[in-house]
Amino acid sequence: MSRPSQRQANEKRLVTITRNYTCHAEGSVLIEMGNTKVICTASVEDSVPRFLKGKGQGWITAEYGMLPRSTGSRMDREAARGKQSGRTQEIQRLIGRSLRAAVDLKALGENTITLDCDVIQADGGTRTASITGACIAMVDAIRSLQQRGVISGDPLLNMVAAISVGVYQGMPVLDLDYAEDSTAETDMNVVMDASGGMIEVQGTAEGVTFSRTEMNAMLDLAEKGIAELIEAQQQALNS
Amino acid sequence: MSRPSQRQANEKRLVTITRNYTCHAEGSVLIEMGNTKVICTASVEDSVPRFLKGKGQGWITAEYGMLPRSTGSRMDREAARGKQSGRTQEIQRLIGRSLRAAVDLKALGENTITLDCDVIQADGGTRTASITGACIAMVDAIRSLQQRGVISGDPLLNMVAAISVGVYQGMPVLDLDYAEDSTAETDMNVVMDASGGMIEVQGTAEGVTFSRTEMNAMLDLAEKGIAELIEAQQQALNS
Amino acid sequence: MSRPSQRQANEKRLVTITRNYTCHAEGSVLIEMGNTKVICTASVEDSVPRFLKGKGQGWITAEYGMLPRSTGSRMDREAARGKQSGRTQEIQRLIGRSLRAAVDLKALGENTITLDCDVIQADGGTRTASITGACIAMVDAIRSLQQRGVISGDPLLNMVAAISVGVYQGMPVLDLDYAEDSTAETDMNVVMDASGGMIEVQGTAEGVTFSRTEMNAMLDLAEKGIAELIEAQQQALNS
Amino acid sequence: MSRPSQRQANEKRLVTITRNYTCHAEGSVLIEMGNTKVICTASVEDSVPRFLKGKGQGWITAEYGMLPRSTGSRMDREAARGKQSGRTQEIQRLIGRSLRAAVDLKALGENTITLDCDVIQADGGTRTASITGACIAMVDAIRSLQQRGVISGDPLLNMVAAISVGVYQGMPVLDLDYAEDSTAETDMNVVMDASGGMIEVQGTAEGVTFSRTEMNAMLDLAEKGIAELIEAQQQALNS
Amino acid sequence: MSRPSQRQANEKRLVTITRNYTCHAEGSVLIEMGNTKVICTASVEDSVPRFLKGKGQGWITAEYGMLPRSTGSRMDREAARGKQSGRTQEIQRLIGRSLRAAVDLKALGENTITLDCDVIQADGGTRTASITGACIAMVDAIRSLQQRGVISGDPLLNMVAAISVGVYQGMPVLDLDYAEDSTAETDMNVVMDASGGMIEVQGTAEGVTFSRTEMNAMLDLAEKGIAELIEAQQQALNS
Amino acid sequence: MSRPSQRQANEKRLVTITRNYTCHAEGSVLIEMGNTKVICTASVEDSVPRFLKGKGQGWITAEYGMLPRSTGSRMDREAARGKQSGRTQEIQRLIGRSLRAAVDLKALGENTITLDCDVIQADGGTRTASITGACIAMVDAIRSLQQRGVISGDPLLNMVAAISVGVYQGMPVLDLDYAEDSTAETDMNVVMDASGGMIEVQGTAEGVTFSRTEMNAMLDLAEKGIAELIEAQQQALNS
Repeated sequence: MSRPSQRQANEKRLVTITRNYTCHAEGSVLIEMGNTKVICTASVEDSVPRFLKGKGQGWITAEYGMLPRSTGSRMDREAARGKQSGRTQEIQRLIGRSLRAAVDLKALGENTITLDCDVIQADGGTRTASITGACIAMVDAIRSLQQRGVISGDPLLNMVAAISVGVYQGMPVLDLDYAEDSTAETDMNVVMDASGGMIEVQGTAEGVTFSRTEMNAMLDLAEKGIAELIEAQQQALNS
Repeated sequence: MSRPSQRQANEKRLVTITRNYTCHAEGSVLIEMGNTKVICTASVEDSVPRFLKGKGQGWITAEYGMLPRSTGSRMDREAARGKQSGRTQEIQRLIGRSLRAAVDLKALGENTITLDCDVIQADGGTRTASITGACIAMVDAIRSLQQRGVISGDPLLNMVAAISVGVYQGMPVLDLDYAEDSTAETDMNVVMDASGGMIEVQGTAEGVTFSRTEMNAMLDLAEKGIAELIEAQQQALNS
Repeated sequence: MSRPSQRQANEKRLVTITRNYTCHAEGSVLIEMGNTKVICTASVEDSVPRFLKGKGQGWITAEYGMLPRSTGSRMDREAARGKQSGRTQEIQRLIGRSLRAAVDLKALGENTITLDCDVIQADGGTRTASITGACIAMVDAIRSLQQRGVISGDPLLNMVAAISVGVYQGMPVLDLDYAEDSTAETDMNVVMDASGGMIEVQGTAEGVTFSRTEMNAMLDLAEKGIAELIEAQQQALNS
Repeated sequence: MSRPSQRQANEKRLVTITRNYTCHAEGSVLIEMGNTKVICTASVEDSVPRFLKGKGQGWITAEYGMLPRSTGSRMDREAARGKQSGRTQEIQRLIGRSLRAAVDLKALGENTITLDCDVIQADGGTRTASITGACIAMVDAIRSLQQRGVISGDPLLNMVAAISVGVYQGMPVLDLDYAEDSTAETDMNVVMDASGGMIEVQGTAEGVTFSRTEMNAMLDLAEKGIAELIEAQQQALNS
Repeated sequence: MSRPSQRQANEKRLVTITRNYTCHAEGSVLIEMGNTKVICTASVEDSVPRFLKGKGQGWITAEYGMLPRSTGSRMDREAARGKQSGRTQEIQRLIGRSLRAAVDLKALGENTITLDCDVIQADGGTRTASITGACIAMVDAIRSLQQRGVISGDPLLNMVAAISVGVYQGMPVLDLDYAEDSTAETDMNVVMDASGGMIEVQGTAEGVTFSRTEMNAMLDLAEKGIAELIEAQQQALNS
Repeated sequence: MSRPSQRQANEKRLVTITRNYTCHAEGSVLIEMGNTKVICTASVEDSVPRFLKGKGQGWITAEYGMLPRSTGSRMDREAARGKQSGRTQEIQRLIGRSLRAAVDLKALGENTITLDCDVIQADGGTRTASITGACIAMVDAIRSLQQRGVISGDPLLNMVAAISVGVYQGMPVLDLDYAEDSTAETDMNVVMDASGGMIEVQGTAEGVTFSRTEMNAMLDLAEKGIAELIEAQQQALNS
């Protein structure tokens, strides 16, 4: 069995990270995982949502969207339909949860960082690319808060990155593109931090159930891929 | 460390399953997992959604809701607010996906079974109780289709059940109630079928990441709990 | 002419009232009128809507819903459709108005009691059963406010109950079930208090108009039925 | 006790009916009951709603609105708020039901008449004025269908009119204006047809319950008022 | 080429302005431009929108609507559809902008005037008639603020009026009615003040582009028409 | 008076046009006007909206959006708010109208081209940049229809481009950036085609009215700027 992209089972796609992609946001990153391209911006506000008022802590939240023609056939624009799909809401809840795991909300003070992840071109793995890219934009936003003297300590606990794994034609594989994702037997998204701790695991069988053995093989691939992504994040932040 | 409920780490709550709980639906089940109580009904319609028209297969879909005062403090009624929350949509997508894994949609013919899971009392684990209860209601609905001669084969592939596991004060535990769930370090929902195949795994770290070792311990507990639930389902169906 | 249920013209269905039906609400009642089953909960909040702020009085309000498969064929879930139907709004306005007539809002202090009436099984008369059941839940909520010392006096003026009457095949009858209701010439809902005062009368001709004589016969039946319901409420509260 | 308007207890306000008030609709009536002014238009469509397709009958439906500044203080525009209030929906359901009682839907053929009742100035009794005015607009629309040869028989069964009655400072009174309506102990809307048959009775106690005796006195007033309104309708149609 | 209405190219329709058309609003005008009839009311509130709080200035805003059967065939009611069309929003933004140009918002103090323009009969030019009529209603509302002593200076800078011009069958014409508007090659709405200053110009080619020469001819017509309308406004205000 | 950007009054910003910017759409253009950046995609569908079914013609329509942090401070995401603002609707109606003027809809056959204009970075003039960029994407989509043999003739009538002009500190200027636009006395958007025909003129006074002389000066600037943009479009299409 070979993969449509001819990649090795444990080979992820080429990652390209462009910081300061747009000019207004406190953090702005274009992340490309192969043909998947997502603009991740981090916006800082010096207040918190109502449910956190006066609790002496900050908040990290995320929103996700796809341009209508980021995909093979045009999707309805959610703003025109008047609501976000269940999928969109599920993804933006996942991104927000994952990035909150990277931050000490007390050390952030009563500030909110909103991460907007907008997919301009989709080829599988948009939610995991969003997490990986948004983490860098978030770090840039945190650094700007520090430089402006708004916060003194460092709320960043650990870098966070994410990747998808799956079982494709019986073979556990890393970083599925759309051609694989749309026919894979199992699709799993994994979020981890730089120390190897697990933050989210979401695995779904599509048509065929998966075994504990397959699950372990997928998690091994995810660990490898996430370590490489965290390396790429660090290089981008150091450049 | 002891659990608030004094249960053993691998001990699930008492399960009670009442079939034919209401009189109109083709399948109607009240499932109680301790103090969590969910009414699961299965409704049959002799048509399919537009995207499946003419494809010679059926469809399984789910909707989920909580009565406003099923919880400790009253929640807004989603019908009055005019939209379902992201959490609600995430849960009903999970229920639908899980139950589709139990069914051969071709053998169902061009029929739709809608599973309504309405929580009348909540004490943690409402989404997993919904899956476990809805599977029984779905079987009753499938049996009614067979008895009415609408379908000839048996679309049921395997019973499906679900349970939550987590890490509570450092200890992997089975079937968290609200007291545990609201303070657990990790919360994981697992859906499996009667043959032990995995259908969904959704694990989330809350504040502290989890390790591969903890993940394995949680999956062991889930396998045990789900086997017991499938036993309870069978007893209910045989009674 | 005989009724589908073989009941006498002036005979209401069996009423069963279960207090403390669910565990979280300040008042929680399952009321069954024959096959019609409604969960009525009363939730207390120590504030009032904006239009009453600072006026030294409380508020009683109601919401109503039907589980999608409480009826013979499945109805759309209002939360999924994104709005409550005109019928739902009409009913919840009626329930709220009726129960406010039972209470001295000044004596309630700046507290709000929200009555949620959720139909789990429908066989006609769901709005009147909701009023009769919600009144008991409301009394339990008022008693809890008194026991917690939040209010000193007694805001309860009078018990309130409701029943439907109609003209079925030319005969005035009490407490219509669905089989009668769906073909009756006239349908009338009556709300009264324990002293026999009238709170609401809503009569509608369906295809054939009704006369003053028929109206009087229906009101006589309603008076009898409501007196019996108030008796049943008292027994439930005393048990 | 005297009425704010100095009218006798059984004296209704001056009624003025202007047919052909606007030029596009098949029926267009401005009805004035004292200072209450409502534009009622009847629009004909040669089709029926989906639930009536192929059943060989027509449909009558109604919509109701108030201009934002038809009232003493400006109300939000429902189109801008994005939904109709419960009160609006209740009223338009009442208007539609009342006018369907005036028509043989079979004789109407597969045509729909939509009655739009838009209040341009409000001083109490807008829903009853809407019914009385819309009935005339509907007759004009039916006559246009007959003149165009679309229908051959006469679907009009009987003229329908409506008026409000109430108990004001202990005295049953006819046709309440806003000054009375806002402080009355009981408010009742009555819809009847030209033969004296009752179509709708909706009575509501506001703070004080009402007795059978008061109810009868109110219904006597309503019968008198509606007979006068039907007279006024006939004069308008004959002019 | 002659116009459907037989008017001269530079001849506008008959304008009729009725002040105090309804009784509740601080300003209420019925404006008729031929068969186009719009009720314009001005409502005063002693507060400003949130974005202006504490800035020591007032606000002018507008809302626009059409009765469903103001047009040749019935349109959906926007309140029932649950949203205002893009056209409606575009028009009400235009009306608000145009009238703000007539007022010194500082001199208005922290008061808001809301202009509701409701079309009861449409025959082309409803947005321009709305601006012309609303300006008079606004003046009446400003005068009432002055008479009540709420404001001392005069916030009115200049009267504002509007008219449509277009190219119809190659000929620049003034004040298009529906018969012309629906087939014109160019449609242009012009808003000016009493001193001849231009406030808004919105020209649109429909099928055929227009030239600078045609544009100038249209603007000449607009200047003439607006001067006549401002004359008519003054007469109405002086009567 | 000098411009914030130090540009000459008749000097537009640098224009950069990148074709094939994303990979899925039939036409995909990134247009940059200085710091304003808009992704314009053209999507082809082989059907038409309902109101054009069977009329033997095609349709061009447009949607517009801004990424939440395309601007200096983050805006709410319209998909999350559940509706498009009036400004958004106004702009997308303008884009659609403008591009329909460039096409012979009969020659397009029963196909629809949807133009999505998504602003990723905003610095004034986003609507005019959208029109200029979308026209190129539309041409690419039309060429793909011709290459696939779906249509035989050429529906493109003329290239269309747009630019903003205004009066800034008393001086007519071309192509306002945000610094100018936010304080200009007049803002005017002009759409023209390659033959110099005018398609749309939308001029708005902000605080100070404008004269016919200023209007003519602005239109002269617009003619110059649009000629240059059409030159740039041609170069991009030829490359």
